Amino acid sequence: MGDFTFAKRMEPITGSAIRELLKLTAKPGMISFAGGNPGNFSLPDEEVAEIIQELLKTNGKNMLQYGPTEGYAPLVYELQKYILEEFGAEVVKDEILPVTGSSQAMDLICKAYLNPGDNVIVESPSFIGNLQCLKIYEANLIPVKSDDKGIIIEDLERLINKYNPKMLYTIPTFQNPTGISMSIDRREKIAELAAKYNMLVAEDDPYHSLRYSGENLPAIKSFDKHGKVALLGSFSKVISPGLRVGFMAGDAALIKKCTICKQSADVHTPTLNQAVVAEFLKRGLLKPNVEKACEVYKQQMDTMLEGLSQIKAVVKYTVPAGGLFIFGEIKEGENVEKYFRKAVDRGVAFVPGSPFHPEGGHENTFRLNFSNSDIDTIKKGMQILKECFDNN
Amino acid sequence: MGDFTFAKRMEPITGSAIRELLKLTAKPGMISFAGGNPGNFSLPDEEVAEIIQELLKTNGKNMLQYGPTEGYAPLVYELQKYILEEFGAEVVKDEILPVTGSSQAMDLICKAYLNPGDNVIVESPSFIGNLQCLKIYEANLIPVKSDDKGIIIEDLERLINKYNPKMLYTIPTFQNPTGISMSIDRREKIAELAAKYNMLVAEDDPYHSLRYSGENLPAIKSFDKHGKVALLGSFSKVISPGLRVGFMAGDAALIKKCTICKQSADVHTPTLNQAVVAEFLKRGLLKPNVEKACEVYKQQMDTMLEGLSQIKAVVKYTVPAGGLFIFGEIKEGENVEKYFRKAVDRGVAFVPGSPFHPEGGHENTFRLNFSNSDIDTIKKGMQILKECFDNN
Repeated sequence: MGDFTFAKRMEPITGSAIRELLKLTAKPGMISFAGGNPGNFSLPDEEVAEIIQELLKTNGKNMLQYGPTEGYAPLVYELQKYILEEFGAEVVKDEILPVTGSSQAMDLICKAYLNPGDNVIVESPSFIGNLQCLKIYEANLIPVKSDDKGIIIEDLERLINKYNPKMLYTIPTFQNPTGISMSIDRREKIAELAAKYNMLVAEDDPYHSLRYSGENLPAIKSFDKHGKVALLGSFSKVISPGLRVGFMAGDAALIKKCTICKQSADVHTPTLNQAVVAEFLKRGLLKPNVEKACEVYKQQMDTMLEGLSQIKAVVKYTVPAGGLFIFGEIKEGENVEKYFRKAVDRGVAFVPGSPFHPEGGHENTFRLNFSNSDIDTIKKGMQILKECFDNN
Repeated sequence: MGDFTFAKRMEPITGSAIRELLKLTAKPGMISFAGGNPGNFSLPDEEVAEIIQELLKTNGKNMLQYGPTEGYAPLVYELQKYILEEFGAEVVKDEILPVTGSSQAMDLICKAYLNPGDNVIVESPSFIGNLQCLKIYEANLIPVKSDDKGIIIEDLERLINKYNPKMLYTIPTFQNPTGISMSIDRREKIAELAAKYNMLVAEDDPYHSLRYSGENLPAIKSFDKHGKVALLGSFSKVISPGLRVGFMAGDAALIKKCTICKQSADVHTPTLNQAVVAEFLKRGLLKPNVEKACEVYKQQMDTMLEGLSQIKAVVKYTVPAGGLFIFGEIKEGENVEKYFRKAVDRGVAFVPGSPFHPEGGHENTFRLNFSNSDIDTIKKGMQILKECFDNN
């Protein structure tokens, strides 16, 4: 009835297929391997309740009053230590901006830095939400090739020379949707290329701490000597997504521009939510919470991998060392859609892989999430998937 | 060091003068008539603590988990009743979107609806934050004339015919920075013009409930029969700005597009924060909280008006019936800047009026806030202002 002519930038945007799917799978009793929710068991409701009670009692007016766009100072202080310890990157106060979920960091970078038509290199497949963000800002997305060690450097340099891209968007650790991690030497190389070609790297690293085997890897940001890497971090997967607290760490000039954009985006990230995360870090609660989650997630992943190995139609799948996702393939030329419909009818949801590919295609791929279902549910769901995939 | 070429849209953007000022005035002991903070006394820390404790105890996992972009369902339910009762506008579920502060609503509307170069009519003076938002989306701002009953309809229609604007941005009730309210017949007329000329009205109404005299006025949205008005509401001035919860109410097609934009802006507004506001509404806590605030704010405003009347250099000022601000003028041709510097040196901050005017100029104007200082502080601060303004 409104009869609106919307902005031109919205014409190719249809909304996140995943978020529409999630609505479908919200039906009671549905087994959901879609989405990327952390397991409910890992959400620290008691600790958060205790922290909030104390914050509101001792500093209540401050918690409920306006705060600076630059962020709640004690959180920025804790973040500085956290980014060094967890990501190996040394940053100062002016290089950190708390944001309302790390998705906001991506939005602010696009707003502050990209013009319509700018070339941006992305992994394919990659995170649908941030691909959509880039599309809304009318970026021209250029997929780079990856293997089991992440982005292939030779292909990246070839594309840089061909397209003179303004930015690279990458998820180096336990990538969404593949679960693959980039090797340490490629991380270092990407930081070098960023400096050499004056290209900003948006390094999205929300799953960094969810490691089930191997050693913690330093972020690309840790190799960044020229302020060319912006690290996007999130507490959604390690504390709580509902709190919507993340951060970006980047060159002070970029942070300043993003802060100006944030002024008129949401003024500031909710104070209480920032303070909860600050206290979580300060009290040393993050590490045990992550350890607890990892122990359970590992078992859930192993159970899902075992189930996948039993499905004949699945010809290939990733075996991640961490994160929340496994990415699978059926025979090339086939379309996973028919199995998807059958599975949803039988009460199991997952996500077809095509929407993760900016160039389209790849209808034979799919993503499974294992963090949001317990072991018995995973066993049951994988048995149903086997029946859907193999009994045609 | 980053050596970035930022987006073209950022070239004319310098950041909010007010937010920079606020940093200046954060010094201890400063009397701040700048900013627009609600009084600390009005922030319901005890009620919020009690509500959160209960929410985390009975529904903790849900509070900390991902939620739908469309908003926390119980809040949408409460908002529907609230919008009808407080603003006189009948809207259904699909016409409501909870947002991370009403500033986000403005950002989402601009993103979903405006193309660079689109003509947007604005009041002059108007809210700096949203003017900046419009500028970042490269809107062409066209100031419309107002008097003590709000926007002058004849001037508005003249500008519509001349510029074919895509949008009107207005703050009809206790306007920021003037404190002036639009008369009911002009509200109705604006809804008619919006339909007649297919122009979206962004009706920003965060101060609506802060009325100290006269009768509650229905929103422009209440006269909107054709889905042409988007009402932007906020709980920042009546519950807590730190929680960052607001809403927009508009045509379902617009809400849907804005929801898609919100997916990649911050995914969803923090669940716990939405739930606190929902409980506040459900438990009937909003009305007594607003009544308590209004009683105090009225006295603070009267004290400030009395102080203003004593300053000879101030030749004109508004006498609002509500809200948070008084707008004043010194002699035309003079610049309030010199008084501003002196006042800050003597420990009193206010905001020069020029940045509120999209066309610039008006250096003889200034804005005073009375909600954030108690009566004794206001008396003291106004005495200092008198000395700064009158002893030259």
